[in-house]
Amino acid sequence: MLPFIRSDLAQFTAYKPHPSSNTAEPVATQFDRLDTNESPYDLPLELKEKLAWTYQQVIETNRYPDGGHELLKDAIAEYINESANLASSPLTAANISVGNGSDELIRSLLIATCLGGEGSILVANPTFSMYGILAQTLGIKVVTVGRNETNFEIDLTAAQTAITQTQNPPIRVVFVVHPNSPTANPLTAAELVWLRSLPEEILVVIDEAYFEFSQNTLVDELAQRPNWIILRTFSKAFRLAALRVGYCIAHPEAIAILEKVRLPYNLPSFSLAAALVALQNRQLLLSSVTQTLNERDRLIAILAQHPALQVSDSAANFLYVRLKPNSSTAKNFTLQNLHQQLSNSGTLVRLLSEGLRITIGTPAENSRTWERLQAAIANCES
Amino acid sequence: MLPFIRSDLAQFTAYKPHPSSNTAEPVATQFDRLDTNESPYDLPLELKEKLAWTYQQVIETNRYPDGGHELLKDAIAEYINESANLASSPLTAANISVGNGSDELIRSLLIATCLGGEGSILVANPTFSMYGILAQTLGIKVVTVGRNETNFEIDLTAAQTAITQTQNPPIRVVFVVHPNSPTANPLTAAELVWLRSLPEEILVVIDEAYFEFSQNTLVDELAQRPNWIILRTFSKAFRLAALRVGYCIAHPEAIAILEKVRLPYNLPSFSLAAALVALQNRQLLLSSVTQTLNERDRLIAILAQHPALQVSDSAANFLYVRLKPNSSTAKNFTLQNLHQQLSNSGTLVRLLSEGLRITIGTPAENSRTWERLQAAIANCES
Repeated sequence: MLPFIRSDLAQFTAYKPHPSSNTAEPVATQFDRLDTNESPYDLPLELKEKLAWTYQQVIETNRYPDGGHELLKDAIAEYINESANLASSPLTAANISVGNGSDELIRSLLIATCLGGEGSILVANPTFSMYGILAQTLGIKVVTVGRNETNFEIDLTAAQTAITQTQNPPIRVVFVVHPNSPTANPLTAAELVWLRSLPEEILVVIDEAYFEFSQNTLVDELAQRPNWIILRTFSKAFRLAALRVGYCIAHPEAIAILEKVRLPYNLPSFSLAAALVALQNRQLLLSSVTQTLNERDRLIAILAQHPALQVSDSAANFLYVRLKPNSSTAKNFTLQNLHQQLSNSGTLVRLLSEGLRITIGTPAENSRTWERLQAAIANCES
Repeated sequence: MLPFIRSDLAQFTAYKPHPSSNTAEPVATQFDRLDTNESPYDLPLELKEKLAWTYQQVIETNRYPDGGHELLKDAIAEYINESANLASSPLTAANISVGNGSDELIRSLLIATCLGGEGSILVANPTFSMYGILAQTLGIKVVTVGRNETNFEIDLTAAQTAITQTQNPPIRVVFVVHPNSPTANPLTAAELVWLRSLPEEILVVIDEAYFEFSQNTLVDELAQRPNWIILRTFSKAFRLAALRVGYCIAHPEAIAILEKVRLPYNLPSFSLAAALVALQNRQLLLSSVTQTLNERDRLIAILAQHPALQVSDSAANFLYVRLKPNSSTAKNFTLQNLHQQLSNSGTLVRLLSEGLRITIGTPAENSRTWERLQAAIANCES
């Protein structure tokens, strides 16, 4: 161990990026890639052409990017106001900060709140793993509670107890996803009551990465709640995962702090241009959401008929599938084996400790998901 | 003040990005932009076309980037081996980590070493301001020493005293730039002796952002010094400032820690592709370095003749210019006024507390720098 490295980092395990198709060795393209909740569709050709033209004609590769992001923040504010009907008290660029994916914003939020032993964070598992991983890299304590096994509601009794009893340091940030990943459920009424009851010294981060699929948003409550912050991303419904653009909606004072903490040139010019083009063409890009929702409901209906599978409702572009208890006595009938069989047959999905998370792809991919899942279960049971 | 924000962040002033030309409102393009040490040249048309083609034909915008960076790391290792004649004990991808500019790598290094009260950092001012700024955002103490007023060598007595006497926490990282910004001098023999004398629990970060101009590198000492880390960037001689790619060369154990700490998808697919294309075409891109060095020497020779200016030698693509003491009694003869006059006449340079940092641009820009500087001095003195 190198003696200048923090001793607590040695044991730490990082997030493992999945094998990408965006390399010069396209190993992964032979797979149905349904493991990272991406959109199955690239930008339409006309937008790719427009962006290629923008790169050639407008962007000077040798010059640093715009570090102020004002044009993009204006466009984001307009989109939020439109989609949340906030015409009476509209948001402005002062309510927006833009990051290198939501990941950078999560890290900045942790830096701004919890460093120096000032706070711990609370998450309810299973949930998006990056909150805990990024907290650990910063030496921030992660307090975890569980969820109801049926509807995946946060164990609110345990959560409230954690808030009350955690000391040295106290809980300073609560992270929730709305709808949650991997379980695909939106926040329940009881969860919302509890989040609203949290005192103003606890930051509530509501990750709405899947807003365009769920249409559930808490953005209209932000004006009343300066301790709530909403995260969004261009990586899912807007199809820009390759270019890494996320954003945060919050009280201008919180935004001012995030702008201080972020890297001054955190977004490449090409990513800024792409996010702007995506917003300008949002009707076109978001028109595929309806198909995704229809495909999701079709797949849920089919999977629900399988005697070995327990599939839950979803407010997002993915499904959470568990094995029915006691549905099979075959010793090979495990999530791990099912995941491996699916991968062997060409469908990549995300393996979690208690279920599989399956992204909704193209209609053809979804049909293959069903065929391969049936075959995989049959294999596991034989 | 929001009660969930760390109290020490309120006073903190962030790095102010300069106004960029890479926006849809090209206000800045009417200026000679000589304030950020960028290359004055965009990529050649053929490479811009190739990258535009790569975006349209190869990159899937909807898919997350390659989070492993293996192809780029291999290409970087090859470039380093070639440029430092390391054929006998070549570096490999295991010696490389890639970041969203050097900025992300600096932050990761600070996180990996000093957080949790484990360390302070040492810098010798004037130097690149981001080391101190990023440390402050993380609540890390910054110890500063000065430099010799003539040759800008670090005050090594003060530095050694700081190492010996700083407690709570001790100095864990020393940052140097080679050559330094803004003063343009490479590390001296005495500085190197001192850096080699530092104990293994102190990390030495050598920022070689301007290596392609200076040809000074310490990469051949890395194998003997596991506590040394070298930073490089594609933002200067490689002309990719818009796309944000920096890299770090170090012992594989240190690299493994940086890979754990970094954001898993820290680089957009387009930036990865551009860095790879830049390396594949390095002879073409770096062919402009000779002209820059010739222009630099021409400008130094001219400026040295001005009775009011004190211009220093430079091992980089910029000059550091001070006012000769007692050369003028005019009360308007100040750096601030000179900087403002230059800006008014269309040349942007960087104002520092004791001098101006002037980037070498195109021959026409450099000639204007000289004309405008003469006129500005005359104005200040009148």
